[in-house]
Amino acid sequence: MLRAREAVRTLATYHPPLDGRQGLRLDFNENTVGCSPRVLAHLRELTAEDIARYPERAPVEAVLAAHLGVEHSELLLTNGVDEAIHLLCETFLEPRDEAIIVVPTFAMYGICAAATGARVVLVPAAADFRFPTSDLRARITSRTKLIAIANPNNPTGSVASADDLLEIARRAPQAAVLVDEAYFEFYGKTLAPTWRDFPNVFVARTFSKAYGMAGLRAGTLLGDAEQLSFVRRVASPYSVNAVALACLPVAIEDKPYVSQYVSDVLQGRKLLQQTFSNWEIPYWESEANFVLARFGTCKNAFVESMRTRGILVRDRSRDYGCEGCVRITVGTMEQTSCLLKAINETMTEISARSAQEQVAR
Amino acid sequence: MLRAREAVRTLATYHPPLDGRQGLRLDFNENTVGCSPRVLAHLRELTAEDIARYPERAPVEAVLAAHLGVEHSELLLTNGVDEAIHLLCETFLEPRDEAIIVVPTFAMYGICAAATGARVVLVPAAADFRFPTSDLRARITSRTKLIAIANPNNPTGSVASADDLLEIARRAPQAAVLVDEAYFEFYGKTLAPTWRDFPNVFVARTFSKAYGMAGLRAGTLLGDAEQLSFVRRVASPYSVNAVALACLPVAIEDKPYVSQYVSDVLQGRKLLQQTFSNWEIPYWESEANFVLARFGTCKNAFVESMRTRGILVRDRSRDYGCEGCVRITVGTMEQTSCLLKAINETMTEISARSAQEQVAR
Repeated sequence: MLRAREAVRTLATYHPPLDGRQGLRLDFNENTVGCSPRVLAHLRELTAEDIARYPERAPVEAVLAAHLGVEHSELLLTNGVDEAIHLLCETFLEPRDEAIIVVPTFAMYGICAAATGARVVLVPAAADFRFPTSDLRARITSRTKLIAIANPNNPTGSVASADDLLEIARRAPQAAVLVDEAYFEFYGKTLAPTWRDFPNVFVARTFSKAYGMAGLRAGTLLGDAEQLSFVRRVASPYSVNAVALACLPVAIEDKPYVSQYVSDVLQGRKLLQQTFSNWEIPYWESEANFVLARFGTCKNAFVESMRTRGILVRDRSRDYGCEGCVRITVGTMEQTSCLLKAINETMTEISARSAQEQVAR
Repeated sequence: MLRAREAVRTLATYHPPLDGRQGLRLDFNENTVGCSPRVLAHLRELTAEDIARYPERAPVEAVLAAHLGVEHSELLLTNGVDEAIHLLCETFLEPRDEAIIVVPTFAMYGICAAATGARVVLVPAAADFRFPTSDLRARITSRTKLIAIANPNNPTGSVASADDLLEIARRAPQAAVLVDEAYFEFYGKTLAPTWRDFPNVFVARTFSKAYGMAGLRAGTLLGDAEQLSFVRRVASPYSVNAVALACLPVAIEDKPYVSQYVSDVLQGRKLLQQTFSNWEIPYWESEANFVLARFGTCKNAFVESMRTRGILVRDRSRDYGCEGCVRITVGTMEQTSCLLKAINETMTEISARSAQEQVAR
């Protein structure tokens, strides 16, 4: 009888809560408005023949590489960062290897690594979700073949310094060190192009967050040309669709669109954190387009009340160390006004109810 | 130092000749016109917000499943059939397993299987590229975990009967038997839903050929619900982009568009085969939207002369058993007229030159 590989049979499933996302989408760290109008206009110029042809990735990779100031051979376009993670695991991990993941973090690193049959080593974040450099270093062995780090991290918004990341890369030259910079535009610091000194470093970028193109599925994996040449071998030549390829050059040209959006998010993030402070809700300083906050026992009431006000936020309480935590994406200033109003109303309600309950006791 | 897995370091690379495809595209078996105008119209109605959201695959899977008369749990949408092949290999193959491929065939089966570290067992087609049922059966062992068969086959256009395919599935219950029906619309016969009796059978379909949506990357993997549940675990929930998801329901509704195109192709295929006969060029009967023909020593001259006439055809002479062979995609009747004119001119030239050369000797 046909049996899936053991690593697959025992694999956790990843079911993001995508169903019926009606309202203000502050639950997936997407751009909350949409892609640039210029991108949309370009998309609408595509012809029936453009749709019928197999996509050609190389010319767009060349444009992106020039934009990022790297060589074409140092860049691979992928079907979202998910494919980049998938390909890195496939290229470098085999059963009995080890993959190190700092938790809490984005779920796909652990899932893709475990699917190869490698052992996934979870290193808990340090106090206040700080990057656990020394704990991570202590877990590196000769079998460590992948270390995946989101920077800024999701769902915490915390960051690791370049020094700490390079220290890890130096200590594990036998491992692919993936630094996932999906939220780069909100943080501004990058590890590119350190792979020229540390050829085991890979940097991932995405068009799903600040650029507002999550639906088009486009990510970029950057790294040492020779190492990337192996990753390229396991990739389908057609994995990035023609619509994404047509739109990417337009997206990177419309710099004002992304800058304006990022500027709104950074302002809004400050206001959101201030609001959490006002209500004495613990939160973590974030360098991304979201903030994680601990609502504790009123977490469910908060999420539900926000939903009735038309605002979707993400319950992250199942993540390691995130009991009672909710992650809220920050959008435009106008959306942040709505968000803060809804939080204030919700917290007023929750406080009143909690005061009543205390009286009743 | 970082080293890719041995299976990856020794992997063949797949570089389809995509560069500068100017002219009539009879080289990739795509729809030569484009997607349905209704699909294009729908694509142009997408909003900036549609582009910014993570794609939601499940509702479209439900629509497709109903269209195909199968359960939702028996269908997985994939980023082209390439991803389906990739996922099947990842789910079922590990090092020391064996994957059986009939050659010549589509290159991705062998590449994806070899990338897992499994041994790829090549079974040559029988005489005239007929399906080698007994030879294949003889190569099945207890380590056989994948058997990949394109039906109709690419690049030969030949088919295997349902009886032969089910005989293989019966003899290898421990192996995933992938029947890739990418050219189904031109052939009309399917192995769906035989997985209900043979849960090791998987059927793949694509929107890249008859439907004219190769640029959007959408394929379908059909199979036993429980077996597919394991394949689903290794897939990214977002691997199919939002544009494809929006367009698929429109594409399957516009049946007249696909029927008309298929009808044109079937007529054109007959005329193309007749033309080959007229010039005494050996060819193989095809059940797909292309014909493979053997030009022998004048193969290069033929391909080059067609290109100067604005027609791209595909040199397949490096495929197993295909020395001197060219594969020509069939398009609409109008395009077939141009094609036949170009073939007649080219062959007249080649014959004249060859006659001159004989005189010169």
